[in-house]
Amino acid sequence: MMHRRENSRGTSLAIVGCTGAVGQECCSILESRATSFDSNITLFASPRSAGQQRTLGGKTLTIRPLERGCFDDIDIAIFAAGSAISREWAAIAVDADTYVIDNSSAFRMHAEVPLIVPEVNGDTLNNVRERPCIIANPNCSTIIALLVVTPLHRVARITRMVISTYQAVSGAGAAAMHELEAQARDYAAGRALSHNIFPQPILFNLFSHNSSIGPDGCNEEERKLSNETHKIWNDGTIAITATCVRVPVLRCHAEAINLSFASPLDETRARDILAGAAGVSVIDDRENNQFPEPRLATGQDDIFVGRIRNDPSQPPGMGLNLFVCGDQLRKGAALNAIQIAEMIAEKRVVSGCDQNRERLPDPPIASRHAAR
Amino acid sequence: MMHRRENSRGTSLAIVGCTGAVGQECCSILESRATSFDSNITLFASPRSAGQQRTLGGKTLTIRPLERGCFDDIDIAIFAAGSAISREWAAIAVDADTYVIDNSSAFRMHAEVPLIVPEVNGDTLNNVRERPCIIANPNCSTIIALLVVTPLHRVARITRMVISTYQAVSGAGAAAMHELEAQARDYAAGRALSHNIFPQPILFNLFSHNSSIGPDGCNEEERKLSNETHKIWNDGTIAITATCVRVPVLRCHAEAINLSFASPLDETRARDILAGAAGVSVIDDRENNQFPEPRLATGQDDIFVGRIRNDPSQPPGMGLNLFVCGDQLRKGAALNAIQIAEMIAEKRVVSGCDQNRERLPDPPIASRHAAR
Repeated sequence: MMHRRENSRGTSLAIVGCTGAVGQECCSILESRATSFDSNITLFASPRSAGQQRTLGGKTLTIRPLERGCFDDIDIAIFAAGSAISREWAAIAVDADTYVIDNSSAFRMHAEVPLIVPEVNGDTLNNVRERPCIIANPNCSTIIALLVVTPLHRVARITRMVISTYQAVSGAGAAAMHELEAQARDYAAGRALSHNIFPQPILFNLFSHNSSIGPDGCNEEERKLSNETHKIWNDGTIAITATCVRVPVLRCHAEAINLSFASPLDETRARDILAGAAGVSVIDDRENNQFPEPRLATGQDDIFVGRIRNDPSQPPGMGLNLFVCGDQLRKGAALNAIQIAEMIAEKRVVSGCDQNRERLPDPPIASRHAAR
Repeated sequence: MMHRRENSRGTSLAIVGCTGAVGQECCSILESRATSFDSNITLFASPRSAGQQRTLGGKTLTIRPLERGCFDDIDIAIFAAGSAISREWAAIAVDADTYVIDNSSAFRMHAEVPLIVPEVNGDTLNNVRERPCIIANPNCSTIIALLVVTPLHRVARITRMVISTYQAVSGAGAAAMHELEAQARDYAAGRALSHNIFPQPILFNLFSHNSSIGPDGCNEEERKLSNETHKIWNDGTIAITATCVRVPVLRCHAEAINLSFASPLDETRARDILAGAAGVSVIDDRENNQFPEPRLATGQDDIFVGRIRNDPSQPPGMGLNLFVCGDQLRKGAALNAIQIAEMIAEKRVVSGCDQNRERLPDPPIASRHAAR
C-alpha cells in the first residue's frame, strides 16, 4: 500500500491497547527497530489510560481513546486489546480504510481472514494487500511452534505432532506477570500468596492452561494450536494433539514437540535446516547441556530450538523430538504483528515465504487421518 | 522375612541418608503412618551429621555414621544417600543379612536386582524374599508415570508413550529446593539470583533436565524412563520417547503423557479404570478447570491424574492423553521404598500386583519396534 492520505508523514501505524503487555512490547520493538513507521505512530488505549503520555522515538505521544473517526488518519492498526475490542472496532477501522492486524482470537478462524506468520505463509498477504482488511496474528504457541517446524515440514512433510507446552503467564496479560512477581514477594515475606488473575497461585506451581474445556476434553489453547496450524499450512490432514500447561515463567513459552514425518528426516539434516531457518536460532550443545530456556529467550526476536534428536519410538528417520522456546510477547505476539505491518507498508510481494522460498507441501490426496 | 535376630523389637529398619530430601521424607512417612517398624528405626547419615539427634515416633534417635558392623542389627535398610554410597555400602549390608532398598540408580538396571513399584510389579518380590538382597526403587518420573498408565496397559496394552515432564527441583535434593526458595527471596530483595546447584537460575525459568546427554541425544532421566519401564513391565517392545524438563516447582513432578494402544480404550473407560486404581486419584473436572497440579499433590501419597481425553491425532479409541502429577519425594521416592520395606517385613505374598490382580500383558511375539 502507499500512503493513501497522500501526506508526507510516511505510513501511519496505530497500536490499539498500547498499555497492555503486547501493546507495550509493540512500542518497545518500534523504539528499537528501524521501521516504516518511525515518525507516524498513534497510541490508543481505554478511556482510563487516555490522556497519559508515552515517549516513543524521541517524541512524546498522548494516548488517545477509541472514538468515532479515530482511524481516519491511520493506515495500519495493530489491535492488542482483547477480543471484545477487536469485535467492536476492527470493522470500523477497515471501513475507515485502515488495515487491521488483530492479535486477538476474534477473527483467526474466519475463512476470509488471513492468519499470518510471515516466515511461514507471508505469501498469503499477496492476495489481500490491495485493499484494507483484517489480518489475524496467530496464537503465541502456534507462532512459536510453526516457526521451527515449518522448515522441517517443507522438507519431510509432518504427518503428526504431539506437543506439550510450558507457557508463561504473560499470555494472560501484564496483570498476570505482576501477579507472579507479587507472589515471589509474598513468599519472601512469609505471606500467603495473593492471586486474582489465575484461580490458584502459580509461584512454585503449574496447571493445565486456564482456558475453557470443550466437549472433546481439549482446552481452547490446544484447539488453537491445532486449528490455526491447519489454516496456516492450508492442510487439515495434519494430526495434532497438544497438552497446554501454564508454568511460573514470566514471558517465554517453551514447547516439547514430537514429530512424525511422511518421508525420512534425521537429526543431522534437521539441525542443518533449522540452522538456516529465518527467525530461528539453534542452541543444541549436548556436551555442556545448553539448550533453549526462557532466561535466554527473553526479549529476543528469534525462536530458539534445541534437544534436536531422533525419536527412538518411531522407525529410524521417521520421527524427531525438539524443545523450543520463544518470547511470547515478542515473536509470539508483538513482533509478528509488526512484521506483518511492515510487509503491508512496504508493499512487499512475497514468494513462498519471506526468506525461504520453498513452498509448503500440498495436503495428501488421501490421508489416513481426516481433517478435524 | 521374620526377624532373623530373634529379638523382640519387631523388624528393624534403617534409613541411610536420613538428612537428605528423601531420607527426611522417609522419616516423615514413618512418623505419620502405622508401619511394621514403629519402635525399631536406625538413622544413618554422613559423619558430618552423625551425633545429631532426631525425634521419631516420640523417641529421640541419634544419627549414626556408616561404619564396620553398622548393619548387624538391621533387617531392612533404605538407602537414600546417592549412588556412590549405595555402590560402597549396599553389598556390605546384604553381607550382613540386611535387605537393601536402594533409591539410587546404581543397581536399577542390574539383571538380578528387582526394580519394584508395588502396585505394578510387587509380585516380583515373591521371588526374592527368601534371602536378603538389593531391591531397587525406580526413578521418580518412572514411578509416577507407571502408577497411572499400568492399569491402562493391563487392559489395552500400550504400544507407544510420548512423555513430557515438568520436574520439580526436589529431584536434585534438598539443596536444590533451598536454592529455588532462596532465589524467590533474592528476587523480592532486588538481588541477582544466587545459584550453585543448577548451572543457571530456575526461578521464573525452566530448562532441559540437568543430567548428561548420551550419544543418542537423550539425557539420563529420559533413558531411565524408557529402560526402567521396559524392566518393570518386563517388556522391551514398548516404544517410549520422553523430554524431561526441570521447572521452578519445589517437590511435585507433572507429566503430559500421550498413549497409543494395541486395542481400543476410550476416555470414559480409562477414567473408570483409573478411578479404581491403587494409589491413583482422579482430578478431572472439565467444567471448573480443576486438574492435577503440584499445589494439590504436595505431601500426598497418591498420584493424581486428569485431562483424561481421547487423542484426536490417532484413530478413534487408539490413543489417549493424560496429565499426571505426584509428589516426587513421597510416592516418587520415599513412600515407594517404605511400601517395599513393609511388603518384605510382612512377608506378603503378592499375586499379580498388590491391589489389582490382573497380570501385566505379555510382550508381543513379534513387534514392529524392537526393544531398545
